[in-house]
Amino acid sequence: MSDGQDERRLALDVEGTLGAARAGTLTTSRGSIPTPCFMPVGTKGAVGTLDAADLDDLGASVVLGNTYHLMMRPGVEVIERLGGLHRFMGWDGHLLTDSGGYQVFSLEPKVDDDAVTFRSTYDGDLHRFTPEDAVDVQRRLGSDVQMVLDVCPPLPSPPEVLRLAVERTAAWAARARRAFVDSDAPQRGLAQMGIVQGGVDVDLRAESAERTLAVGFDAYALGGLSVGEDRGAMLETLDAIVPLLPEDRPRYLMGVGDPIGLVEAVARGIDLFDCVIPTRFARHGTILTRDGRYNLKKAENTAADVPLDETCGCVVCARYSRGYLRHLLQVGEPTGPRLLTLHNVAWTIALVQEARAAVLLGDLGRVRSDIRRGWE
Amino acid sequence: MSDGQDERRLALDVEGTLGAARAGTLTTSRGSIPTPCFMPVGTKGAVGTLDAADLDDLGASVVLGNTYHLMMRPGVEVIERLGGLHRFMGWDGHLLTDSGGYQVFSLEPKVDDDAVTFRSTYDGDLHRFTPEDAVDVQRRLGSDVQMVLDVCPPLPSPPEVLRLAVERTAAWAARARRAFVDSDAPQRGLAQMGIVQGGVDVDLRAESAERTLAVGFDAYALGGLSVGEDRGAMLETLDAIVPLLPEDRPRYLMGVGDPIGLVEAVARGIDLFDCVIPTRFARHGTILTRDGRYNLKKAENTAADVPLDETCGCVVCARYSRGYLRHLLQVGEPTGPRLLTLHNVAWTIALVQEARAAVLLGDLGRVRSDIRRGWE
Repeated sequence: MSDGQDERRLALDVEGTLGAARAGTLTTSRGSIPTPCFMPVGTKGAVGTLDAADLDDLGASVVLGNTYHLMMRPGVEVIERLGGLHRFMGWDGHLLTDSGGYQVFSLEPKVDDDAVTFRSTYDGDLHRFTPEDAVDVQRRLGSDVQMVLDVCPPLPSPPEVLRLAVERTAAWAARARRAFVDSDAPQRGLAQMGIVQGGVDVDLRAESAERTLAVGFDAYALGGLSVGEDRGAMLETLDAIVPLLPEDRPRYLMGVGDPIGLVEAVARGIDLFDCVIPTRFARHGTILTRDGRYNLKKAENTAADVPLDETCGCVVCARYSRGYLRHLLQVGEPTGPRLLTLHNVAWTIALVQEARAAVLLGDLGRVRSDIRRGWE
Repeated sequence: MSDGQDERRLALDVEGTLGAARAGTLTTSRGSIPTPCFMPVGTKGAVGTLDAADLDDLGASVVLGNTYHLMMRPGVEVIERLGGLHRFMGWDGHLLTDSGGYQVFSLEPKVDDDAVTFRSTYDGDLHRFTPEDAVDVQRRLGSDVQMVLDVCPPLPSPPEVLRLAVERTAAWAARARRAFVDSDAPQRGLAQMGIVQGGVDVDLRAESAERTLAVGFDAYALGGLSVGEDRGAMLETLDAIVPLLPEDRPRYLMGVGDPIGLVEAVARGIDLFDCVIPTRFARHGTILTRDGRYNLKKAENTAADVPLDETCGCVVCARYSRGYLRHLLQVGEPTGPRLLTLHNVAWTIALVQEARAAVLLGDLGRVRSDIRRGWE
């Protein structure tokens, strides 16, 4: 089911490998993305507390947008009238959008073979949403990379739930690919990513991988992980499934962004990551450091004349003390969560960049043990 | 009562005049400040939603800090341990601090000839605060320019209240100057500004000016205006009192920052301004434009593909549409108030810079009529 266009769309040029890990460059019509790459999450048209100029300064290559939130507010029509999601956000870098499925499936929707029916969290209205709708909405948003609508059960789930999720995900993938190929998206240089489901049942997930590959996408994601299972089970699943994915296509582990998860998944050949941890932690006063997560509101920071993380090269660590940043949190100044967000996102991007460099230099083991020391 | 140090401290080099208006440069040990100059208000150690890097980008020359809030949270000791207010905030530009009096007098304090006694809004504790305390706190904060503790009654107030305010302000000014001169502040290149009170009673205010000048300060402020009186009464007071102030000393009109007030006060010879309007309006979704203030939340902006103000050169107007910015407000993203703050502060700084250029070019009348057209 080729789209008849550039077969190289979103192809990965691998520059170096270390075991299963690889460092490379993704090239798109918009530019290039060094991988492994962490994508900050811009839920409602902005990464919380930040704007596009901040994302430039952070050196973010890709930002993830949430289709569910954007189609509810302000709505696709509005974003189209304002020139598409890039121009809406003022962001010239890459945009990857999810399908909306992840949020929708958290709303206890009714799912049938054709579609998912859910009530909007914004106004309570009923919406029916098909795989084709997900393609169309993301195409209209103008995402550089769009995700198929999949069925993502929490873990643990009964075998029959995981089986049904794989069946529907496969059927929906074929419909989504057809809708994508028949649209103007390929001509516009946009790409589409398929999603492998199957929980931590390796056989089921291998089947899902095979069926997703049979449809044929520009890239492949692992969904339905980091949804309740322990990290060991997740990593074993990666060990088993990543080798089944094509080497010249990027691999995206959806929703994983804790430091150990990041470096361990890089070691297993994952290229793309997204996660709300850096932004959500910042909102609650928690910072990411080489020594682990840390609640900055603790009284011991009142007059602490040290940066958030001595090893961090971000603009916040260069300019502000823990004492000042804690003060901003204590008095409720919005500048506080903002500066913590800048740090946490910069820290996470830098960690993945460090892992990339370590793949090329052959010392990823050092990064892995260093992160385990601080975070385990 | 000279401090025996550099008599030129905070002296103003006037580069051009137009009637009573003047454009000049203030030189301090820290650097130079083109005047007229608008000073954004950094109440609790940050200009709301912004950090010091933003203030650099905005080209702010001076930021105002609120002594009351800072001495309550995190406390002077903490700021001293973190290297003083400049280093605490990460801000290398100029800092002017108020005395704390304005906030304290809003708390229905007990005032006697010696001091003011008030309950903290933070923890309800009783505090007694003298003019000498105000000098000492600001000296420890390391403000480049500190203000004397004055008595600032609302308008209208009975004549005896205004009279008592002038008497106490004059007595406290002499005590504050003595405390300042006897401290290490002059040696450190810090400056102190006296405050003229007297409401809109021109005779009383002239007396207050005379008594403040007799004490002798590095600069002179007009306090107790824009506290309830109409703008006409305020401007008539400026017409009468500004000519009584020395030409080589900066003149600061405290708390005025509405666009008409700014340009009309520039026309009357004022050099320095502070006001919370740009930041407070931004917090509530109101933008400053050449056509007046405007509530961006109006539905007509839903898909508005125009900048906040077509005439504005700020980074927000260069990058974002009204539609996008309204969306951020509607969904409660903190990026929304932040971008509006960047615009409103940039807009106000640019207006005062435009007025400065107009003084030098001789066409301040054009700026005044243009602002009156949009704002009256």
